[in-house]
Amino acid sequence: MYVKNRMTKNPVCIDVNSKISEVVDIMNDRELHRIPVVSGKKLVGLVTESMISKQGATKATSLSIYELNYLLSKTSVDAIMIRDVITIHEDRFLEDAALVMFKHDIGCLPVVNDANEVVGILTSNDVLSAFLDILGYRESGSRVCVEVKDELGTIGDVSDIFKRNNCNITHLGVYSQHNGYSDLIIRINTFQTDALEKDLNASGYRVLSITKNPN
Amino acid sequence: MYVKNRMTKNPVCIDVNSKISEVVDIMNDRELHRIPVVSGKKLVGLVTESMISKQGATKATSLSIYELNYLLSKTSVDAIMIRDVITIHEDRFLEDAALVMFKHDIGCLPVVNDANEVVGILTSNDVLSAFLDILGYRESGSRVCVEVKDELGTIGDVSDIFKRNNCNITHLGVYSQHNGYSDLIIRINTFQTDALEKDLNASGYRVLSITKNPN
Repeated sequence: MYVKNRMTKNPVCIDVNSKISEVVDIMNDRELHRIPVVSGKKLVGLVTESMISKQGATKATSLSIYELNYLLSKTSVDAIMIRDVITIHEDRFLEDAALVMFKHDIGCLPVVNDANEVVGILTSNDVLSAFLDILGYRESGSRVCVEVKDELGTIGDVSDIFKRNNCNITHLGVYSQHNGYSDLIIRINTFQTDALEKDLNASGYRVLSITKNPN
Repeated sequence: MYVKNRMTKNPVCIDVNSKISEVVDIMNDRELHRIPVVSGKKLVGLVTESMISKQGATKATSLSIYELNYLLSKTSVDAIMIRDVITIHEDRFLEDAALVMFKHDIGCLPVVNDANEVVGILTSNDVLSAFLDILGYRESGSRVCVEVKDELGTIGDVSDIFKRNNCNITHLGVYSQHNGYSDLIIRINTFQTDALEKDLNASGYRVLSITKNPN
């Protein structure tokens, strides 16, 4: 659940002295939209596809295409990169990274170590994938959604009911309704849920849905 | 936990007969990167910023800027939009939407109803935010990470220990290590965790970390 467990290691970086035209080639070849800019191994900036197209658009009104291409082949990336790059440390929790992405509305974070060297890159897709793992979404079994009161020991009581029906809880998410009730989203590694559902109802819990995921 | 609970309702859409230059204006004014294209209320396509810049780039090599602007003001959006739009139904689980985004590497899904009318738009940021809620990340309290064996009833046993130490579990995520062990990421609404930690250790559980979140 740490950033370093889910990031892409050794991402493509470009040297701060590279020309913009080189960056364009790398972005096209590798299908990348953002590339960290380094001096040695240290992060010094970030360049994105849209920075380059804006650079092109600004100059395009006054230059011919040939002049523009010439300019891009002579201009270093440090002329257009952003220097205040939002990063995340490799030892932070993945939730921390998710919050940073959410707050700043960005889909990608360079990952750094103590020396501010780029050791990875983390995208919102990496985070989505990790969350799907935490909720057990891609595993075979059943998904049981139960409405419960927000009370001390509720999760223990509910998990006792699962245990006595031989249903092993593999994942459990809690989705608060903020009205004193929460939805428990529980994954179990079995498709036999009839006895469990009866027992939950008999114990006073409201089963909102049960879906089977054969995978 | 349904798409309709977390989507942005009534998103900006454009009529299929709109000109590309109108779309550019709307994208700039509203800071949008993708807009669903509709005929009446029905979804018929999607247009993105990069489709428009590609359109511009292709023509830019053979036309002057004035000719290009004229062309964009005369060409309808249906000439460049994609028609096979990946969508999600408003009644699907949020996890389903996350998986679709992950599989297709896209950050945004138009949300439709039974009549294929656009009723919302869901971004990867909306999904990240929902997952942070499920894990209780932004709530005041403590985050306790405990390593447990993947066994029937483990979550019940652990939650009993929390209960007898008066720690109310508000959120619980399970992160499988795929080696017979899992990390339980448990949020509680208190900062008093000393007795709990001792009890967990005495009961044979390994406490990996405890962090406090005062918010």
